[in-house]
Amino acid sequence: MGSHFITGGAGFVGVNLVRRLLADGENVVVVDDLSRGRIEFLASFEGHSNFAFRRADCSNANVLLGVMREFNNHVDHVWHLAANSDIPVGIADPRIDLERTFLTTFGVLAAMRAIKADYLHFASSSAIYADFKDVEIYEDIAPLEPISNYGAMKLASEAQIRAAVEAYLPRADIFRFPNVIGTPATHGVIFDFVRKLKATPERLDVLGDGSQQKAYLHVDDLVNAMIHVSQLGGRYKVFNIGPSDSGITVKTIAETVRDRVSPNATIAYGEGNRGWVGDVPRFRYSVQKLISTGWTPTLGSDAAMRHAIDEILRQETASRCRR
Amino acid sequence: MGSHFITGGAGFVGVNLVRRLLADGENVVVVDDLSRGRIEFLASFEGHSNFAFRRADCSNANVLLGVMREFNNHVDHVWHLAANSDIPVGIADPRIDLERTFLTTFGVLAAMRAIKADYLHFASSSAIYADFKDVEIYEDIAPLEPISNYGAMKLASEAQIRAAVEAYLPRADIFRFPNVIGTPATHGVIFDFVRKLKATPERLDVLGDGSQQKAYLHVDDLVNAMIHVSQLGGRYKVFNIGPSDSGITVKTIAETVRDRVSPNATIAYGEGNRGWVGDVPRFRYSVQKLISTGWTPTLGSDAAMRHAIDEILRQETASRCRR
Repeated sequence: MGSHFITGGAGFVGVNLVRRLLADGENVVVVDDLSRGRIEFLASFEGHSNFAFRRADCSNANVLLGVMREFNNHVDHVWHLAANSDIPVGIADPRIDLERTFLTTFGVLAAMRAIKADYLHFASSSAIYADFKDVEIYEDIAPLEPISNYGAMKLASEAQIRAAVEAYLPRADIFRFPNVIGTPATHGVIFDFVRKLKATPERLDVLGDGSQQKAYLHVDDLVNAMIHVSQLGGRYKVFNIGPSDSGITVKTIAETVRDRVSPNATIAYGEGNRGWVGDVPRFRYSVQKLISTGWTPTLGSDAAMRHAIDEILRQETASRCRR
Repeated sequence: MGSHFITGGAGFVGVNLVRRLLADGENVVVVDDLSRGRIEFLASFEGHSNFAFRRADCSNANVLLGVMREFNNHVDHVWHLAANSDIPVGIADPRIDLERTFLTTFGVLAAMRAIKADYLHFASSSAIYADFKDVEIYEDIAPLEPISNYGAMKLASEAQIRAAVEAYLPRADIFRFPNVIGTPATHGVIFDFVRKLKATPERLDVLGDGSQQKAYLHVDDLVNAMIHVSQLGGRYKVFNIGPSDSGITVKTIAETVRDRVSPNATIAYGEGNRGWVGDVPRFRYSVQKLISTGWTPTLGSDAAMRHAIDEILRQETASRCRR
């Protein structure tokens, strides 16, 4: 049984990782500043004897050290998920990505160094890769030219971690996340479409022309992949995580959500194949390296999307009932 | 005639760039916090009507904006050279690299965005590449896994700049510097050997076994290359800069300095082929891309080293006379 610190543990992926680790009998401490994570997402873990939550800014190594000291510096694994996950917000104000995505990595590394913690698992992103058009993106592709500030700060974090492994950190995993879907949802294309159609059942406005094609992974598969990689040997491991298909278009998602939520709605597309500055219209993501280690996703992009729509609709109904 | 802001302009490369730009009839404003740069290096430019110096911390965008406002926001080019160039210091305390190498880039970008400045020229480093052994390192090699915190913060800076070009910055050059030698020298292998032999003429202690082999470029060639690249077209350009040879060993440098300074000294080598954590024992650096644009270095590694020894000996004699 190990002791796990999860930064950003009150966020979408974090909550799912906490659930899995607790189910596996592990000790879990969530550290989250609640800037994007939500305390209510952790409600179901409250009172669990292996679970603790501390509200803290992970960019401050001393604050993080204070939390670790509370737990007698007993930290086997740090899962560093804290980040600003809202790409457009980070483009408007780069300081958000700097502080929440990059400086949290800096703080986590400094704290781990101080207590000689062993193993860092880092949630990086396919956004580090930029726009390779139809070229399949494998881990060692080049050049790495992130076109969003979010991707830049994730790449910057990877670089810091790599240098830390050289100097003092015993082990690190770099997970390059794809688009991840599921619940608890707070943003993302499916969530947006559901919310929009609930608000205006007759019309769904889509950013861009709908031709953007991306791969989507269900969060359960993502968490499985993270645990799987953490059990492989190796001092510094870098893995793309994603489904093994080439993805689905925004048009497919829009139509599927429309059919489930408001079948008579008109879908109004925008122009161009980018939803926003820094959006990548389409990419092919290779997960061959991960699959070669024995992992397989249970859901492809289309099935994951349909499953996530169900979950998000349940979430939205439940949240309406609570109001 | 353009207006040039040079961050870190009181440092080794900066001073040489200032001299060149002033000789070309350009306006130059040096911004430097003097943490590593030295005011006396700028002495020969004092009173030049096209030259100004402001002491400022470039990681603070508002301070930088204040300086730019003084010059009516007339900034055509920013040459961002400010950085912590002492790799071991950054490994001992990563905050130094964070603040001086990474956050200065953040500050420069924020200031440039605010005044809509046009063109950023960034001093990156071959340290972003890590250890590729005998594989020739060209710009698009992968993976990029910097093994020093200095290299990590340079790579992190590149990532930021790339994202800025996508979002708002009209133009940027990324210069990946090699080992650069010449004067005014404040650190580096030649400088260290000269100083050591002046202190103990009978013995020269060398970090590592002397087998490390690196390419060295003279600073005059470096500045030529930077100006050359800045005159090429293109929105985002990435270039390795270096001599076209495969370099010289530390042993060769030690023996050459010994022969010049103290011919009877014994050279005592250390163990291993790394001078310090994060040092790369040997790499082959491709400058084919730069050479294909019409640039050629005037001095190879060996000639540059011999020339730099002369210059450093003159510098040391002059500084002794001034005391």
